[in-house]
This record gives sequence, C-alpha cells and structure tokens, in this order.
Amino acid sequence: MARNLAHKLIASHLVDGDLSPGSNVAIAIDQTLTQDATGTLVMQELEALGLTSARTETSVQYVDHNLLQTDEKNAEDHDFLRSASQRYGLWFSKPGNGVSHPTHMQRFGTPGKTMVGSDSHTCAAGSLGMLAVGVGGLEVALAIAGQPLRIRMPEIWGVRLTGELPPWVSAKDVILEMLRQHGVAGGVNRIIEYYGPGLAGLSAMDRHVIANMGAELGATTTVFPADAEVRDFLRAEGREDDFTPLSADTDASYDVEDHINLSELEPLIARPSAPDNVVPVREVAGTDVSQVVIGSSANPGLRDFAIAAAIVRGRQTDPSVSFDINPSSREILEDLTRMGATFDLIAAGARIHQSGCMGCIGMGQAPAVGKNSLRTFPRNFPGRSGTPEDSVWLCSPETAAASALAGVITDPRDLDRDPPELALPEKASVNTAMLVPPLPAQQAETLELIKGPNISALPDFPPLPDRLAAPVLLKTGDNVSTDEISPAGASALPLRSNIPALAEFTFTRIDADYPRRARGHPGGHVVIGGQNYGQGSSREHAAITPRYLGLRVVIAKSFARIHWQNLANFGIVPLEFCDPDDYAGIGVDDSLLFDDLPDALSAGNELDVRNTTRNRSIRVRHRLSPRQLDAVLAGGVIPLLASRA
Amino acid sequence: MARNLAHKLIASHLVDGDLSPGSNVAIAIDQTLTQDATGTLVMQELEALGLTSARTETSVQYVDHNLLQTDEKNAEDHDFLRSASQRYGLWFSKPGNGVSHPTHMQRFGTPGKTMVGSDSHTCAAGSLGMLAVGVGGLEVALAIAGQPLRIRMPEIWGVRLTGELPPWVSAKDVILEMLRQHGVAGGVNRIIEYYGPGLAGLSAMDRHVIANMGAELGATTTVFPADAEVRDFLRAEGREDDFTPLSADTDASYDVEDHINLSELEPLIARPSAPDNVVPVREVAGTDVSQVVIGSSANPGLRDFAIAAAIVRGRQTDPSVSFDINPSSREILEDLTRMGATFDLIAAGARIHQSGCMGCIGMGQAPAVGKNSLRTFPRNFPGRSGTPEDSVWLCSPETAAASALAGVITDPRDLDRDPPELALPEKASVNTAMLVPPLPAQQAETLELIKGPNISALPDFPPLPDRLAAPVLLKTGDNVSTDEISPAGASALPLRSNIPALAEFTFTRIDADYPRRARGHPGGHVVIGGQNYGQGSSREHAAITPRYLGLRVVIAKSFARIHWQNLANFGIVPLEFCDPDDYAGIGVDDSLLFDDLPDALSAGNELDVRNTTRNRSIRVRHRLSPRQLDAVLAGGVIPLLASRA
Repeated sequence: MARNLAHKLIASHLVDGDLSPGSNVAIAIDQTLTQDATGTLVMQELEALGLTSARTETSVQYVDHNLLQTDEKNAEDHDFLRSASQRYGLWFSKPGNGVSHPTHMQRFGTPGKTMVGSDSHTCAAGSLGMLAVGVGGLEVALAIAGQPLRIRMPEIWGVRLTGELPPWVSAKDVILEMLRQHGVAGGVNRIIEYYGPGLAGLSAMDRHVIANMGAELGATTTVFPADAEVRDFLRAEGREDDFTPLSADTDASYDVEDHINLSELEPLIARPSAPDNVVPVREVAGTDVSQVVIGSSANPGLRDFAIAAAIVRGRQTDPSVSFDINPSSREILEDLTRMGATFDLIAAGARIHQSGCMGCIGMGQAPAVGKNSLRTFPRNFPGRSGTPEDSVWLCSPETAAASALAGVITDPRDLDRDPPELALPEKASVNTAMLVPPLPAQQAETLELIKGPNISALPDFPPLPDRLAAPVLLKTGDNVSTDEISPAGASALPLRSNIPALAEFTFTRIDADYPRRARGHPGGHVVIGGQNYGQGSSREHAAITPRYLGLRVVIAKSFARIHWQNLANFGIVPLEFCDPDDYAGIGVDDSLLFDDLPDALSAGNELDVRNTTRNRSIRVRHRLSPRQLDAVLAGGVIPLLASRA
Repeated sequence: MARNLAHKLIASHLVDGDLSPGSNVAIAIDQTLTQDATGTLVMQELEALGLTSARTETSVQYVDHNLLQTDEKNAEDHDFLRSASQRYGLWFSKPGNGVSHPTHMQRFGTPGKTMVGSDSHTCAAGSLGMLAVGVGGLEVALAIAGQPLRIRMPEIWGVRLTGELPPWVSAKDVILEMLRQHGVAGGVNRIIEYYGPGLAGLSAMDRHVIANMGAELGATTTVFPADAEVRDFLRAEGREDDFTPLSADTDASYDVEDHINLSELEPLIARPSAPDNVVPVREVAGTDVSQVVIGSSANPGLRDFAIAAAIVRGRQTDPSVSFDINPSSREILEDLTRMGATFDLIAAGARIHQSGCMGCIGMGQAPAVGKNSLRTFPRNFPGRSGTPEDSVWLCSPETAAASALAGVITDPRDLDRDPPELALPEKASVNTAMLVPPLPAQQAETLELIKGPNISALPDFPPLPDRLAAPVLLKTGDNVSTDEISPAGASALPLRSNIPALAEFTFTRIDADYPRRARGHPGGHVVIGGQNYGQGSSREHAAITPRYLGLRVVIAKSFARIHWQNLANFGIVPLEFCDPDDYAGIGVDDSLLFDDLPDALSAGNELDVRNTTRNRSIRVRHRLSPRQLDAVLAGGVIPLLASRA
C-alpha cells in the first residue's frame, strides 16, 4: 500500500502499536534537543533517573533562552548545564551559539531520523524529513535514557502545495495562511505533511519556517520530504553524506486532504494577540509602528536576515522605530557578516543583538504599553513580550523591513522598488567551536554536577489520594497558553531551575492571587479550562508549578497535546467534559468531590464528579493510557519509577 | 605667565572667580551630555525649571544604559527621552547608537570646548582637549538652561609622559598604573593634565581610555592637549574643521608634578573588587576565568576591539569561557565589520551584544557567584556586575583576549605569537542616522512630553527644619560608592524615572532593611560615612532616594566631589568631621541633635553637633558656598528656584 512520509517515518521507528489514528504508539527516538529554560529540569530528571550515559545517537543541550544574565542565576544555570551535558554524554551548545532549532538543523538534522525536544518548536526539524516532536522535559529525559516516545497516533493532514510564491511573499506567509484558515487548534492530534510541486520553490530553511509554526496550529509535528532542496542545504553545511532521499509514495493518501496554491498568497500579518488573528497586511497598512524585530526560530534562516538587509540597504529606518536584529545562530551571523548583510543592517540603524531567542521568549526587547511591535516571531500571546497590554504583530521579514523603513505597517509590495535578488553563499560558515562535544564515557562518569544555589532539587509529589474534595480555584477561557500558566520573561525564566521560587508566578497573568489562594488549600484544588487548554510552549513547569501549589485535577473542554502529557507526567489528572455545556455549570469556589478517584479512573474512560456546592454531578472522561494512568496514580512518572527501583 | 592647559581652558570660559585652588569658580558651559539612566531626571528638571529651549551650543541625550527592555519601562523611558529631547532642543541618540562618551567624542567632541555631563565618565572628552566634567543631573539641567558650572577650583596635577608603551601594553595599563600608585581618592579635587613626549604614541582614543578612568581616581577631570593625534582623529571622523591646536605653554607649571615612563609599564590588572587593587598580570596568571568581556567607555575605541579580534583570529576561545563583546558604538561596530574584525571575533566564539554599556552598568552579563570575570570596564565595585559576591577584574583588551583563549588569566606577552600589527581604516564609517537632530524652535515648543506610567513627578522636598533631632541609621566604611547607595543593575535601573519605587533599593547592598527603618523615622535621619564617601557614578539618585526616605545630614571623613554636590542640590547637609577620630565615637542608633541648624550653618564653616545618646558634642565643618547653602536651607535647588520664581 502506498504510504505517506509521516507513516514511513513512524513505521521505521515503531516499537509498539499500529498507525491507526488514536492508537497508542511507541516510537524509537534517535536524537534529542533540550534548551536551557526546560533543560535544567531535564538534567535533574536524568539525575533522578540515575542515568549513566545517553542512549540516543545524538543529544544536544542548547543555551538560547536565558541569555540576559541580569543576575547570577543565568550563569549558574549555564555552568550546571555544561557540567550535566558532560556528565551524561550530551553535546553542549554554548550561550551565543544560537537558537536550538536552526542550530540543530545546521549541525545535526538528518533525514529519516526521529527526535524529541523539550521545546514546542522542535517540530521545525521536520523541514529536513525528520519526525521531530516537541514534548515535556520528562519525555526527553526518558528518551535520553533509551525509552521510546509514547503518543496517540495522530491523523495525517496532507497539504499539497502548488504554484510559486509571488515576489515579496515568503514562507512566513504560507504558515500565516494556514493559521488564518485553521486557527490555533486546527492541527491538534494531527501531523501536517506538505507535498506537491510547490515545494520546489521552498528551500529547506523556508520549510523550517513553516514546520516551526506548525506548533501554533497545535499539530503534533510537521514533515517535509527530503529532496533536492534538503540535499542542497546539507551540502552547504558540509554534511551531504547525511542526506537520504525520502518522500511519500506517489499514490499515498492522507487522513485529511488539503491544498494551497502558493501563487495566490499575499503578505499576511497576525494582529495582536493570537497567531491566528491573521489579515492581509494591506488591511492594516499605515498603522504606527514603534518596534520591528527580526529573528527567532520562526524566521531563522540566512535568507530571512539577508532579505531584510537587502531591503534596508542604503536607506534608513524611521527615527521613531527601534529596529532589532536577533541573529538566530552564530553561524548565520558569521555568514551575514561575510556577505556584507550585517554591515547593511547596522548602517540602516539596526540594533544587533546576541544570537538567541531574546524577545521571542520575553528576554528583553519589551515594547512600551500599547505600542505596536512587529516581529518575525512565532507567537504573540498576551504579555509574552514582557509588557502587560502589549501589542505584538507577527509577519514576514519582508513586511517587517518595509515597515521599519516607513515607520508604519507596510505591505512590502508597496515599497517603491523591485524585489531584491539575493545571492547567498553556497557554503555556510561551518564552525563548531561553540559546540562542546560529549566526553568519553570513562571520563564522564567521574564528573560532578556544578549546582549553584539557584538549582533546587525536584519536589517530592505524593500519590493521588483515594478521595479528593477540592475547590475550583480558577476557571479559564479557551486557548489558554502555557505562557499564561507559567510565564516566561525576564523575571520568571531565571527561576526555571527553582520550582518553589518559580511557583510564585503560576497563573498570575490570569489571577495575581492564585499562588496565595492555592497555598490556602493544602488538600489540593481544581482548575477548569476551555478548549485547547495549555497551548503553546512545551514547558513542563506549567504542570510542575501548579502541582507544587496543590493542583490535582484539570477539567477542560479539550487539551493541547504537550501540556496534557505534562499534566499526566506530574500526577495531575487531565479530564474532559463529556458534555462541553457542563463547562458553564461550574464556577470558581465550587467544591468538587472525587470519590474513589483511583478506582474510578482505572475502571474506564468515563467517571462522575460531584459538584457539592451546586449539588449536581457531571460526567467527565480521561484519555490516559494504562502507562500514564499508573503514573498519575503514583503522583507522577518520577515517583512511579522511584517506587519500582 | 606660562599657563598649563587646564588653566587655559578654564580661563577662556571663566564667568566668576579666580584660578587659585579652592576658590569658587563659575565656568561657562558649551556642551552637555546626558544618558538615559540619569537623563530622565534631567528632563523632568528642565520641565520643573520651565525651560523653553536649550541655551548651550550642543546638548545631546544618549540612550546607552537601559537597553535590555526586560519589561515596558525601558521603552517608555526611551519614548519620554525622545520627546523631551525634541521639546527642549537636544540631539537624541537612539538606543543602539552607542555609549555616550565615545559617541560624543566621535560626533561632537571639539578642542577648547567645555562640557558637563550627568555621567561620571564625562571626563573622557578631555582626550580631545576639552574641559569635561561629570556632575549631577541638576547641574546639567542648569547648564542646559544657560547657567555656568560652579565648582571649587581644583589643583592641577601635571603628569609628564615619556617613553613609549612596550608591545602588548596599552593605554589601560597607563591608567591602571595611576590607580596602583595613587588609589581611588588620589585625584580628589584635582584636574589631571597629561603632557610630554610620551603623548606622541597615544592616539586620541588611547587618551580617552586614560581620561575616562580619571573618574576612578576621583579627579574632577582629565585634560590632554589637542595635537596632531587629535587632528588625525577628527579627520577620520570627517570633522577636521573642528580642530584647534591647544596645549600648555612650554614653561607651564603644575600644582602637583608627576611623571610616568611609559617604557617601564607592563600589563596590569585590578583584582576584585576595587579599581585600585592593581597588580601585574603575571602575579595572578593561571587563575581560572569563566567570563571575558570587552567593551564599555573605558576601552571604547576601534583599536580596543580590533586588537582583541587580531589576537583571537583563527583561534578558539576556551570552552569554559563566555567571551562577550559589547561594541561601544554603532559606528565602531560598522568599522569593525567593514575591516573583518567582527567576523574574526564571531568565528573565535564571541557573543556579540548590542552597542551600549551592558554589563558595565549591571545590565546583563552577570557572572556566576565567585567565578572570575575579566572585563575591560572602568569599575569593579562589589556587586556592580549584578551578582552578589562577584569576582570582577579590570584589564586591557590584550590581557582580556589572551585570557579568553587560555581560559586562565594570561599576560599577553606570554602568548606564543608576535604582537599583531593593526591596520585601522583612515576614515570612520560616519553615520548619523541614529542621531535625531533638534527640531526648529517653533515646532519644538508645541510638543507634548510622552510620559508613560513609569515616569513619576519629582517629589516635593521641604526646607531644612530649625531643629533636627535625628537618629544615625547607617554607618559606612571608606570609599562607599554611589552603586552601594543607589544600586544600578537590571532590577533598579528601569526605575530611574520613578523615585518612590527606586527608593526601595537605597543602601540595600549595605543594609537590606534601611528603607523600612528610614520610613520609621519621618522626622529625618543621619548617615555616617568614612573617607571618599559617594565615589563612582554621578547618579543624583544617590542623593534623591535617601532624601526621599528622610536623610537630612551625612557626616563623613571626606566626600567624593559629584556626590557632595548632589547632596547639597537635594537639600541634604554634607558635613565633615573636624577630627576624623570622632568617626569612631558615633554608632548606629545614636541620636544626634542639631539645634538652630540653619543659623549654625550660615554663621560659619564649623558647628557643633550634640550626640544625646552618648552625651557629648563633636565638631563638624561644611564646605558649602553661599549659593549651595541657600539651596540646602530651602530643601534643595529646585525648591529654591521655585520659591524665587
């Protein structure tokens, strides 16, 4: 039978299960990626698991989030991560080497390989014909320890691309069009597979843009074939030997069939404050702009910076605009510098920042309240920029550069010039000097982890009680992101290794008083969510910190995949309303009673919950695998593994 | 009579007084410089003064401190400063254009001109034959409003330079030698004038290094002649027309005579945590290094970065070192990029940061606790890096680069290579696009200031009471810096426009409980200081925030110049012990009684203070001019001017 590429990739790594949507599958994992904001916990989990040495082919620890070093905590995290990478046989990518996703693609991405990463944009590696899935940190720790990835088999959503992008329209506009059509939950429980003749006009880095922001659709991952474009990319990186051609069979079918004619696209922009709030740029042209930022894993390629440099070359950005450039990797900055683009950007008034995520994760670059900031980033969730009541827009580098020149939102087609012709170097400035290789095992085993005072131990989490009588402390709307559950940004991110301190930020963007109220209910509490609860970043802190404060159950209309898994991993029961209308019938401070909870969860997929305040029962369901259920009952995966050790 | 250059510069601008040391002089001011961390208050002071338009020849507002933008406050300060610059007829240097001192030197520095700046390193402009003095913000506001600078005439300290710097030894080693010999108070009440045949080997930017860190000696300022080197510098900047030759008369004499033979110098380094804690590099060679930072106004020249780039070219920095480059201006980054040095630095493993002060003012780049950080910065006061118990060393770019390669402190002479030959471009990349010119007056007058929620009004300060009975809340040691009185760093700096919020940081590096205790004494309180009280940064916040918390009198063994003036400007009485031994006889919580204080201050320079706890009196003196005394009695300069309006 003709197979699509996603099925081929999974089948070649299948340890357990079958490929019918919804079945539990176990997939062998070749590579892992961790970044510093999630990686410090992964390293602590490796320690808790008693790992001797990584069992994956390649595992890399990047430092790209916590780069500002406003106090000693960041540097101590870096020291800890370097020592843990050496101890456990990982590569260590030094601060300044770049954002994990493009750097991994450049140095390690290999067609046909599988990868998990503790970052929701891990899916970007699908650009090279990999199956790369963003997961919680504990899943990555287990993968490093040699465990397969266990997920429910997604549907495969085939998107046939035809035509060719018009001038001034680029990859970012493709994924913005997907978000415009399908929304932030459009890809939930799906793998997006792009195919068709339109691919010929999209470079591997263009595909990275599209694959990366598949996360914004809620998709499990995105895959592209490994074709001539991928070969060209690997050749430029000096790794042509890593190339294997891979594609769907000619007559392959998909669970969902879709089509985009690239020729019909135009420059698009996501308005504040959701990635799917997409309109044509011309519809909002003329709006004042105070900041323009180019960078992040959503537009990380040499081309993305070079096109901006070419647009602003010999001109000046508007005096009222801060024009910020965040090189996505040291290699790309080296190439940009070699080809003269860095000079052009500086001469046009750019602020060149260190290579890393920077403002994309709220580490600096916060705009003034209510002032419009245009960014080539993947996300504009409320407050993620570090500014309350921010006004962040998402667009292509072309739209960003045109708007920086004009000082107002500008469709690049309305610039008085022809589209620039780019001449990119055939060979990348390959340079692995900031990439510290794993140590030989004998040397590694004797190493001590360097733990500064900000590296806390993982908290102990007790098992699920038999009877849980607990109040509802929070009721959220739809599409609550993990940024709202456990904020990133310059205040909170340095505390990612310190759960008690970080817990004080939990849910504070929704209710500043949540941590205090939660501590007032040591017996535990419940949160009620809407659709797509926990979208966005993969941070498992969004499970651990509320759990630390006593959260034991979340009842939502539906969950985002990674967060759902993180909840189960850390012993929080994720339940869905059988009848979504019951959402309306629960309020904050209602008392809920879960009687014989472990038995009820084990007996089947549905159970009753008693609302003792309103004296009624509601029906809820869970989707936990037997393995996940064991973890939830034990208080989480780590207590479970500890109890078996 | 033969005159030295300092006397010539003052005489040509003298409005009042004579040049005998200690006499009160008034000096007409041609230019002003403000940066953002102090400038927001200066702009509020201009508003309080009701200024129509700047009366100076050139006034420039730079943004170089608050660049991280970890939340909305920085961006709001930038908007406020841009609007105020436009309103009051100032140039506005956009965020990313660079550090005030080198940028000012490149674009505006002119031999023979006078300048005041609300930054202690304003003295760096002495490198071009200017008389440039760092003062509190209010002094700058008054200068912008057309007032002369009023100071006590310093002694002139002539330092004759002979010989030539050996290979691997550079300007930073000259000023470190001065600090080694004379200490952080060695220049108090002095202007340092360098002259002699040794100057021929020091470029204008080399002289900037030496003039800049004259602030670390406590000097009023530093002057160099305007000679062929200065002409070369101005020619490279496209401003040869601004050159005027200036030097001391051949037989000029100095109040203090000194001599350095440059040929005898070797690479030096200041150990933690004082700029005068200087030893030869070889004495500490081999010490582990975890961070190396090149940048700041203390080593801001193209040469300082280019020499580092040449040293690391084709090599790799040590894996355990973070090698950070802070370009000091956009122009210098443009030149470095054009000449290939940026590429060399990136390729060797550097993190290239945005142009600005960055870690020099504790805005990021904080090292881990106790880990050695080598910096080409001017200051290593305890905690200024943003890390408590930091371990910061000060050295030349040569020593910094050599140590980054080796991973341990390394004398550059011990590298296995010849000294690099630098070929610097003859023409600088002059580019004024990030420098917004003043508006025409008619347009300016109608502008509104843009005040975000973080821009507070200046507090009202009541006059000095007749009778002050107040406890001693704090007793400090010698050389307390304004960093310890009102910390900078990433937490506090964004609050520089918000006195009530910033006040919560006052003295907390010495006593975390000081703000609370101060609020417990609404009738006012006293602080006891040692020698050189208030050294370092010019920030008037170090006077305003303790005043806001009730500080009315400081009694110290001696004061640093700028802080002493700031105290008087904001209505705090600066008193000195007539007998320094009395310092030992006062303790924290002692009650002091100042009876008929205004009369006692007006009656003469000495007065008695009653220690009612210990039942004894001590004799103290003040050095206030009649004008300053009026201000102190009125509660400060602003209440005084308001009362006269």
